[in-house]
Amino acid sequence: MRKFILLFQCLDQKGIVARISDFILKHGGNIVAADQYSTDPEGGYFFMRVEFILTKEQHNKDFLTEEFSATGREFSAQWKIIDKSQTLRMGIFVSEDDHCLIDLLYLCMSGELNVKIPFVLSNNEKHRKLLSQHNIPFHYVPASKENRREAELLSYALDSTDFLVLARYMLVLSPEFLRKYNKDIINIHHGFLPAFKGADPFGQALKQGVKVIGATAHFVNDKLDEGPIISQEVEHVSHKDNRQSLIRKGRNLEKKALANAILSYIDYRIIRHENKTIVF
Amino acid sequence: MRKFILLFQCLDQKGIVARISDFILKHGGNIVAADQYSTDPEGGYFFMRVEFILTKEQHNKDFLTEEFSATGREFSAQWKIIDKSQTLRMGIFVSEDDHCLIDLLYLCMSGELNVKIPFVLSNNEKHRKLLSQHNIPFHYVPASKENRREAELLSYALDSTDFLVLARYMLVLSPEFLRKYNKDIINIHHGFLPAFKGADPFGQALKQGVKVIGATAHFVNDKLDEGPIISQEVEHVSHKDNRQSLIRKGRNLEKKALANAILSYIDYRIIRHENKTIVF
Amino acid sequence: MRKFILLFQCLDQKGIVARISDFILKHGGNIVAADQYSTDPEGGYFFMRVEFILTKEQHNKDFLTEEFSATGREFSAQWKIIDKSQTLRMGIFVSEDDHCLIDLLYLCMSGELNVKIPFVLSNNEKHRKLLSQHNIPFHYVPASKENRREAELLSYALDSTDFLVLARYMLVLSPEFLRKYNKDIINIHHGFLPAFKGADPFGQALKQGVKVIGATAHFVNDKLDEGPIISQEVEHVSHKDNRQSLIRKGRNLEKKALANAILSYIDYRIIRHENKTIVF
Amino acid sequence: MRKFILLFQCLDQKGIVARISDFILKHGGNIVAADQYSTDPEGGYFFMRVEFILTKEQHNKDFLTEEFSATGREFSAQWKIIDKSQTLRMGIFVSEDDHCLIDLLYLCMSGELNVKIPFVLSNNEKHRKLLSQHNIPFHYVPASKENRREAELLSYALDSTDFLVLARYMLVLSPEFLRKYNKDIINIHHGFLPAFKGADPFGQALKQGVKVIGATAHFVNDKLDEGPIISQEVEHVSHKDNRQSLIRKGRNLEKKALANAILSYIDYRIIRHENKTIVF
Repeated sequence: MRKFILLFQCLDQKGIVARISDFILKHGGNIVAADQYSTDPEGGYFFMRVEFILTKEQHNKDFLTEEFSATGREFSAQWKIIDKSQTLRMGIFVSEDDHCLIDLLYLCMSGELNVKIPFVLSNNEKHRKLLSQHNIPFHYVPASKENRREAELLSYALDSTDFLVLARYMLVLSPEFLRKYNKDIINIHHGFLPAFKGADPFGQALKQGVKVIGATAHFVNDKLDEGPIISQEVEHVSHKDNRQSLIRKGRNLEKKALANAILSYIDYRIIRHENKTIVF
Repeated sequence: MRKFILLFQCLDQKGIVARISDFILKHGGNIVAADQYSTDPEGGYFFMRVEFILTKEQHNKDFLTEEFSATGREFSAQWKIIDKSQTLRMGIFVSEDDHCLIDLLYLCMSGELNVKIPFVLSNNEKHRKLLSQHNIPFHYVPASKENRREAELLSYALDSTDFLVLARYMLVLSPEFLRKYNKDIINIHHGFLPAFKGADPFGQALKQGVKVIGATAHFVNDKLDEGPIISQEVEHVSHKDNRQSLIRKGRNLEKKALANAILSYIDYRIIRHENKTIVF
Repeated sequence: MRKFILLFQCLDQKGIVARISDFILKHGGNIVAADQYSTDPEGGYFFMRVEFILTKEQHNKDFLTEEFSATGREFSAQWKIIDKSQTLRMGIFVSEDDHCLIDLLYLCMSGELNVKIPFVLSNNEKHRKLLSQHNIPFHYVPASKENRREAELLSYALDSTDFLVLARYMLVLSPEFLRKYNKDIINIHHGFLPAFKGADPFGQALKQGVKVIGATAHFVNDKLDEGPIISQEVEHVSHKDNRQSLIRKGRNLEKKALANAILSYIDYRIIRHENKTIVF
Repeated sequence: MRKFILLFQCLDQKGIVARISDFILKHGGNIVAADQYSTDPEGGYFFMRVEFILTKEQHNKDFLTEEFSATGREFSAQWKIIDKSQTLRMGIFVSEDDHCLIDLLYLCMSGELNVKIPFVLSNNEKHRKLLSQHNIPFHYVPASKENRREAELLSYALDSTDFLVLARYMLVLSPEFLRKYNKDIINIHHGFLPAFKGADPFGQALKQGVKVIGATAHFVNDKLDEGPIISQEVEHVSHKDNRQSLIRKGRNLEKKALANAILSYIDYRIIRHENKTIVF
């Protein structure tokens, strides 16, 4: 018994669900979960995620992909079939702050976050001991604003990872890096985007006297802190909060927003569309 | 162009989605939204809500019901097809507190809550003026703990309503009333069920010194405050809160929980199952 | 028995609390509630709000103000003594959307919001009937972007109100109006400031694909949507939310943020300081 | 320069604040923060927490306690003066689940939680390695329902700790243990008390179909899960949540509620009163 996921998107038109469910039925499958969304029920863009179980040995991903391709063409769709038994490889970049890193390691250890971590990479050596305790390779790359050492970053990440997580990595990745890496990168921003972009969002929050702070997990694109938002968490604050307490409250928000984003991502619940996300 | 909703539930088995989507396609329909849920992906109980558009004149509810009945039998399903153009008739019972009543009237007026209100019934005359301003019939029934006048209540509600809302109606309806009315009744309880059942939940909250209060919208069944929960809202409180401020905060929670429950209900997003609800 | 409030602020220094509490004791008073805050415990700016009860007839506001003035001078403080029995007069400006207006009227009626409403003023005639039902004077002023009729607004507001509430009034008040009115004005903005300033915050939220929306109550100053924030409310949203559902969710946030701000304001719990607020 | 805290409670009466602030002034002190609360402003029970700075060498805790004792007697108060430079010793009991333990260790390491941890004690050996990595003594005590080994627990905890934290310790401590230990014990309960007392709150939540789950940090007393509540956290759930996802969401709530409770506790912000807490 194997689990597969079909991600499917195209211009909305009649008969999509019928065709997809028929395809699964014909291969002896059972739909476990199905989500769909249309930007406009009377003629927009259609998105679907179907999770299904197949029982026959020969039904592997390549076979199904071959079988489904005619249907995909017919609807002029973008689509992908994923074998759920394959574990994704998640590379982690981190600078000094380690709360998100520690939370992710815990979630992996406890089995809640089912990924392989090929390495953790940092421009701060302090994490070496922690990673050795977890038996995870640690790469120290003394990147800085002056020298981002992106070739080195890329050499570690390119082949060994399916996606990257910036778990409070404080250097901006260049458009060139993004283009060469060419896979998804998830960043956690310690502020409520689109407010408080860039450096020191807590300082900005204090200066503005806001009564709510937030954290935002988003895909990285070539505009700073403007990639598609995946998840956001918020909490009330008051005049009594100082930088220290904002940082403490912010850490919980960042951990939660980032973990939720990654959990959705590795379960293929996120579809990117026009600089926004559909999160099933 | 007409919108329909199919609600469907049965033991999980292969091919349900294929058959349903095929049925819609065959009648020239387009699926606008579909939600499904299974209590256990490997063999539990299956629930589905499909919203679809048909364009042919002759496709009315009776015709579709007739057409679908063989399929329903085949899966031994409970199912129902609803014509979305039909507006439900919502009777309101209320005692003294009028915050939920006023909120519901506002939501109707503003078009957010698409129901007909055949009457508001109360054991308190104070609401007469308000209802006359809204041109909604008002029935004053001096019901009390000693004499609940349920025959009178029933005479108003039975034929003129599709469902009832107890918008802070403080008398318990008897099992006999429920049996005779035999349609859905939604109640708002001013506490976080299953804690704080029964009378004076704010007094109970104060006595226990809780740091969070809540409100619960639920279907009424023959056990006091134990019917299936539809929606719950919560808010932090502190030692500074007294009865008056709890009541004020509670009112906002009650309005929100009740409005959300009714909005889901009239959009046929709620399925009752084993004293719980699935809310799509 | 009469209740008074002392609001007091000065550079932090020794002995402030001792002197203030001594002053109250000397006049036979009892402190009911006291809040204090210092921007920096080791030498910043100090703020205090003390609520106290006096029992002697002759202890009125003028007498206490006279008695306290030497102490105020000694600390070079800004301060004010308020007689809590005086009810504030709150003028309301509103454009088309009436959800905040209706909520404020309800809170007044139910006794939760203890203010006098000398008038409601709108550039939309639709509210006339509602106000007449509440026996509150209604001024229709057909102000528009082209002609804001601020002289007319001012003629209504200047002498008859202690403060103004913009309960979804969609025209910007000019710096000149603010200067001439010269009392506090509270606005509700239907977005999470400092993000989404200006027009159509819901459109901005949809375009950005945010996962949380908010509402912000703030004092009006001469920069659009940049006055000191008093209270903010937030709620999670998803890709499923469209403009209509954002508006519906936003309304609840706006009502709550505005009501909380006004309740704090009329209880003299808000101190403005450097474009921020301390809300005790 | 030294920081002290005075905790003070008595029947409400005139002149308390004046006397206390005068006492601090006379010793050359400066009040850094002050909170007060009265159960009934017109004659209830009065609570105060004052944090102040003294600069003279000889002003130690014993001296101040001696100096203040006459004032305390005069008001028939319960009171205590605390030297803020003293770090509290927090013993931790834990069973199998380690998420709260790991969070507390992180908060200590990062300096956010300023306590000494003399030991972690568990009836599960799995934590030994983790604690050795943190250089914290680990005591394995194979306690079980049949044999709680409370004498052994007590021998570890009695002299070496100022308070205990049950960070998911799944055995109930007997009234005799509580009497002999006779200091504060903080427990985290993985449910929204007073609902879902006792074992398996997630199972109870699933069975009831609640739409919100919670976690509760509370002081332990001799009634199971009925001690004074310190902090509660809540989160929305839906029919889609299963036991596993409830556990995952619950963990975040438990970590947050417990950390907040301990942070308040070690800053002496919690006053217990009549099975409730005042948390300044």
